[in-house]
Amino acid sequence: MPETKAPLVGTLAIVGLGLIGSSIARGTRQYGLAKRIVAIDRDPGVVERVRALGLAEIVTSDVAAGVAEADLVILCVPVGAVGTVAEDMATALKPGAIVSDVGSVKASVVAAVAPHLPKGVAFVPAHPVAGTEYSGPDAGFSTLFSGRWCILTPPEGTDPDAAARVQTFWEGLGAIVETMTPEHHDLVLAITSHVPHLIAYNIVGTAADLETVTQSEVIKFSAGGFRDFTRIAASDPTMWRDVFLTNKDAVLEMLGRFNEDLAALARAIRWGDGEALHELFTRTRAIRKGIVAMGQETAEADFGRARSGPTPEKVPPVA
Amino acid sequence: MPETKAPLVGTLAIVGLGLIGSSIARGTRQYGLAKRIVAIDRDPGVVERVRALGLAEIVTSDVAAGVAEADLVILCVPVGAVGTVAEDMATALKPGAIVSDVGSVKASVVAAVAPHLPKGVAFVPAHPVAGTEYSGPDAGFSTLFSGRWCILTPPEGTDPDAAARVQTFWEGLGAIVETMTPEHHDLVLAITSHVPHLIAYNIVGTAADLETVTQSEVIKFSAGGFRDFTRIAASDPTMWRDVFLTNKDAVLEMLGRFNEDLAALARAIRWGDGEALHELFTRTRAIRKGIVAMGQETAEADFGRARSGPTPEKVPPVA
Repeated sequence: MPETKAPLVGTLAIVGLGLIGSSIARGTRQYGLAKRIVAIDRDPGVVERVRALGLAEIVTSDVAAGVAEADLVILCVPVGAVGTVAEDMATALKPGAIVSDVGSVKASVVAAVAPHLPKGVAFVPAHPVAGTEYSGPDAGFSTLFSGRWCILTPPEGTDPDAAARVQTFWEGLGAIVETMTPEHHDLVLAITSHVPHLIAYNIVGTAADLETVTQSEVIKFSAGGFRDFTRIAASDPTMWRDVFLTNKDAVLEMLGRFNEDLAALARAIRWGDGEALHELFTRTRAIRKGIVAMGQETAEADFGRARSGPTPEKVPPVA
Repeated sequence: MPETKAPLVGTLAIVGLGLIGSSIARGTRQYGLAKRIVAIDRDPGVVERVRALGLAEIVTSDVAAGVAEADLVILCVPVGAVGTVAEDMATALKPGAIVSDVGSVKASVVAAVAPHLPKGVAFVPAHPVAGTEYSGPDAGFSTLFSGRWCILTPPEGTDPDAAARVQTFWEGLGAIVETMTPEHHDLVLAITSHVPHLIAYNIVGTAADLETVTQSEVIKFSAGGFRDFTRIAASDPTMWRDVFLTNKDAVLEMLGRFNEDLAALARAIRWGDGEALHELFTRTRAIRKGIVAMGQETAEADFGRARSGPTPEKVPPVA
């Protein structure tokens, strides 16, 4: 964690205090990244919890009033809602303010937010690749981003100083920052996150609907592999609905590839082609090794969540 | 753990000292379940490791000699190999011996093993639903089965005393035992274990073959969901090849259901049917809650592997 002397940000406004927003608030406090935090949430229940948890100096449900003094505004609402929030706060933003977000989809967020922002306000979209299956202001913790990647996707023409400040902010939270275009981000995340979630949701749904196997049998014998999918399939429904609706093209493209490969695999099983199966099952181990070697997962026979991982070194070569 | 006064088993022979076999050896020692352990493995490297680890009184690669004194023989080899092993050891078995196994598929194991066994030798197939992604004699640990389910599938006409002894043995290792037919077992495991493994292997293969996203990007940004699949897809290739080849019908049937559901989900995405997505994503949370409530997983934002879980209570109702 870099040592921060003077806070990087004067007033930080966080819109949406769920898992991610409340983790940013906690990390900002812990690492001294801002002088003042304004927490904004339209849900009165969340406003109350955030006050009780003491996560911010000011807690409000009025987005325009909340962002008025902000030097940095981070939108932590589902990606389907960022456009409306941007519209609601646009005229209240002060000149020189930087707007960012944490959405899992980037091209549609740029399209929804950028048109609303006044001249003199920079937009630096960001996506911290971190999370758990829990939601809400109580679920956050200050080290959620520690050793995790955060992807910035500044649209062409973004003020480089603004992008650099957002990068420093995320590094202050312990993240490692990488920059790419919004379109490439959406392809990368479609395969590393969106399609995995989709097939996890799908198989849990399939299992729930069977007549030949009872739901209590599925639950009892889940340790054979199924339970790993249920964790993913317990993620926030609204957030994930929006991800699939806003990253439709990349998700359907990657899903098409997945389906082609699955059809070939089913045929190998039907025809008893053990060699093809063994070859694939051996090849997939190399990717796992790369992930463990990079510190994005522990090597224990366990999952590495909610621990602060080692700082990733260079990406190791994968055989 | 039940207190064991006199060891339950005189001589226990374990054929195949991988993750499961070596965990049985360690647990048998730790809980005093047998007077003597004979470890049998045809791989000279494994024989050497098992000797060095001191897991058994006798270590040999001669299966017939190894089982000659055994009261209980547990086959812990891939399911594609159990038939050959049964054939090799059949004439050496002593009258009254019990043969069991740990295979993830049961109907084909019964078909492959039972015909070779002499009269007076009982066959009680078993499947402990536990494991990690690691293989080999060094990967085992004595508490692997603690709080996990073990399914017995005695074929019709099996000596009830033999089945009861195998049940007591697994309970001695800390497992909770349930009995069902081999055919029903294979359906239950197809959806809770085999198809999840298949789609995990498949998506890791798909990701490795993309041209638009590099392998190092897949590795870097895997924390968004993908890494959970890579753990499963790092499991032993030979074991899993055999599972798919021997449980072909049930796997293809469940895969057909999975594919139907996935096609409907893809269509919901294509047509922007957010309501259908949200409904599924909400429904899948209930199954997760059931798994956590049953003690087959911890509720932390983390995975519960390699810890000894609480003893499962009754299966809770799932909304």
